Amino acid sequence: MNTVELITKKRNGGELSREEIRYLVMGFTEGSIPDYQMSAFLMAVYFRGMSRQETIWLTQEMKMSGDIADLSWIHGIKIDKHSTGGVGDKTTLIIGPLAAACGVPVAKMSGRGLGFTGGTVDKMEAIPGFRTALAEEEFFGQVQRCGISVIGQTAHIAPADKKIYALRDVTATVENLSLITSSIMSKKLASGSDGILLDVKCGSGAFMKTEEDARSLAEMMVDIGRADGKKMLALITDMNQPLGNAVGNALEVREAIRVLRGEGPADITELSVALAGRMVFMGELADSAEDGIAKAGDALRSGAGLDKFREFVRGQGGDPAVAEDLSLLPLSELRMEIAAPRDGYITGIDAMTIGLASQHTGAGRQTKEDVIDHGAGILLHHKSGDKIRAGEALMTLYSAEASKLELAAAEAAKAVQIGDEAPVLPPLIRGSVGEEPVPENREKECGL
Amino acid sequence: MNTVELITKKRNGGELSREEIRYLVMGFTEGSIPDYQMSAFLMAVYFRGMSRQETIWLTQEMKMSGDIADLSWIHGIKIDKHSTGGVGDKTTLIIGPLAAACGVPVAKMSGRGLGFTGGTVDKMEAIPGFRTALAEEEFFGQVQRCGISVIGQTAHIAPADKKIYALRDVTATVENLSLITSSIMSKKLASGSDGILLDVKCGSGAFMKTEEDARSLAEMMVDIGRADGKKMLALITDMNQPLGNAVGNALEVREAIRVLRGEGPADITELSVALAGRMVFMGELADSAEDGIAKAGDALRSGAGLDKFREFVRGQGGDPAVAEDLSLLPLSELRMEIAAPRDGYITGIDAMTIGLASQHTGAGRQTKEDVIDHGAGILLHHKSGDKIRAGEALMTLYSAEASKLELAAAEAAKAVQIGDEAPVLPPLIRGSVGEEPVPENREKECGL
Repeated sequence: MNTVELITKKRNGGELSREEIRYLVMGFTEGSIPDYQMSAFLMAVYFRGMSRQETIWLTQEMKMSGDIADLSWIHGIKIDKHSTGGVGDKTTLIIGPLAAACGVPVAKMSGRGLGFTGGTVDKMEAIPGFRTALAEEEFFGQVQRCGISVIGQTAHIAPADKKIYALRDVTATVENLSLITSSIMSKKLASGSDGILLDVKCGSGAFMKTEEDARSLAEMMVDIGRADGKKMLALITDMNQPLGNAVGNALEVREAIRVLRGEGPADITELSVALAGRMVFMGELADSAEDGIAKAGDALRSGAGLDKFREFVRGQGGDPAVAEDLSLLPLSELRMEIAAPRDGYITGIDAMTIGLASQHTGAGRQTKEDVIDHGAGILLHHKSGDKIRAGEALMTLYSAEASKLELAAAEAAKAVQIGDEAPVLPPLIRGSVGEEPVPENREKECGL
Repeated sequence: MNTVELITKKRNGGELSREEIRYLVMGFTEGSIPDYQMSAFLMAVYFRGMSRQETIWLTQEMKMSGDIADLSWIHGIKIDKHSTGGVGDKTTLIIGPLAAACGVPVAKMSGRGLGFTGGTVDKMEAIPGFRTALAEEEFFGQVQRCGISVIGQTAHIAPADKKIYALRDVTATVENLSLITSSIMSKKLASGSDGILLDVKCGSGAFMKTEEDARSLAEMMVDIGRADGKKMLALITDMNQPLGNAVGNALEVREAIRVLRGEGPADITELSVALAGRMVFMGELADSAEDGIAKAGDALRSGAGLDKFREFVRGQGGDPAVAEDLSLLPLSELRMEIAAPRDGYITGIDAMTIGLASQHTGAGRQTKEDVIDHGAGILLHHKSGDKIRAGEALMTLYSAEASKLELAAAEAAKAVQIGDEAPVLPPLIRGSVGEEPVPENREKECGL
């Protein structure tokens, strides 16, 4: 086999065989195929696309490029959850404990990543003492004992994805459904859970701007996961404004705890129960998604979710007292409020702009070497649809440095649109992929 | 400026500015833009193309990436000639002396390259003593004294092209008109001649398979050259069967000498006079292309071209006696004849297959490190349209090694098609680009 011939074949619109895809993925991972040939191939894929079968093979070969976690000796049906990423998305911190409280084993490997805030492991590390680098035995033991563990993803899971993603990022070849799908799914399939629930975001703060694009991605990921024998479901959810009110690492942990206490913002609470409920259903601990949602709602109201959160934090070396005393979580000294410039209704809070402002506060990384400030971030006091008066505080920004705070505030001020009329807001949960049609407003029926 | 943004712009179908193209060409040449970004950009160009203006800028920036030869102190209008490459194309060895004999200064830098035989400098080096590595002063002096010099192209001419071409070759991004044009024309424009005559080949043995594609390339090259202030003309010529009868380095020098003696095959003689005549016209030493062709024909018939060849060879250290005694040229010891398997008419001799067979004999390089066997190659005894009898010799192959000879013969035998009916052959000269319409069969009218 010859790399130039394979690039040419894809460039000319041909369909690659499994052996050809394996040759490319293995050769690139091992270093026998250089970056410049892989980037030309990826650009050809950008223009020509990949068939369903090619995407399955690509995902499989990327999955097979490293270790495959074997969770088989953990009892029960292990359910993982993946969000395509958004601003203020701290659902993993909530739904992990909720699902685990309902009996679903959650053995989650999570990334750090670049972006507006840290990844889930960065957020967890905002809790004093919390450790995300557990040895395999410790990880498995924690899942067995407590029902939930979240650790940093090792370099041995899908190394092909790491290398290919790094190349896509600098060669303008990110935006292709097959490449996005194989990147996400190769890691998830290698992480060993029996089922994967996807939260595919759409809107201005998401990678997929339209509901249609998000649905296409969700359909492809559900299809590819099922081809690998996994249980798969996906929700399509709104990411035009930030999810919940908190953006930043410790700020998001605070909000997650508030949700588990039953005191959280409505949107993040609604979505968390909808997601956790589906995990319960996928874990075969409920007869239907509705039943699962009811059970997750019960776990929230009864405090079982919060208890599980405490147990989870204690199990990984963190201080469980944070669940009662939020002041144990770091919060940056310097603060700045942004006030409403006029009376009116908030018609939009651009998630992307808030995300960028959050990064400016120090809550996110711009390069892999950046150190995250766990106490930095943004707390929104109002969300889209709220009626506000001139001078009223719209949000508070937190940062360790005055210069960062000013930069962040200048950005954040651009995010909020105020109009004269109350806006018509899109539903938070736009739809689902992979499940039977459900009655409208089902999520509302869980009584939250 | 940011490389990813520029790749994205081209990927999305945008048109780059001169500054953006300069940033890419300079950055890549200097090494600040890595191979993997350039290859992604080139693949985006493959799919999106480049506008005329972008192609002009790309060519200009590649030209400016290294030295620009200054031939201004050589008197007269210097005319260069470039062929897009074919099998048995030794016209430079003939038309250089013919044009110089008519007074056109020919200061030619030529490549070695990979392929079926060596490049022009490899062919010249088949002549005992001939030197193609002259210092600049010696090169200029030779043109001044003798009217013609051919040397190897230095690494300082269009280094951007060298680097980009090497990358295109291994990333399936060769086949794009703008990239082909900029590659050829950047070198030619940097070589300093006042005019460039192009011989754009079409057919099975050429890069451009169809006359239409060859014409598109010729039009773009003429346009880009004129935008740089150069006199430009192009002929579109047939490359379905090899040009002339000889393929191989010393074999081609022999045939070139035979043509200059007036004893050469009709096709190569016709094309050489047509090309040399146009060089004379472009050099303003004839009133029209017809007049130039007549003058070139005179130079051939009078022996002035052969005299100039001797002077040219002597001037660069070669033995001018080769012009009289062809046995001074090397010829490989081992020979093999291929006989016609049946009676009939030769309906085709596939140029690409003969070229590959020639490479097998040792006449061409497969990698840069390969050493050329000057005495190897193929001599055709018949061409398309000839009537032959079973058992009659179709060609003789020459090689230094028996194993190479056998490999070459097995390939070469596949090249010849024999049918019952005399074929209708396409004209050798299919047309021209950049000149006024000419009467049909003009080349035939020069009396050769």
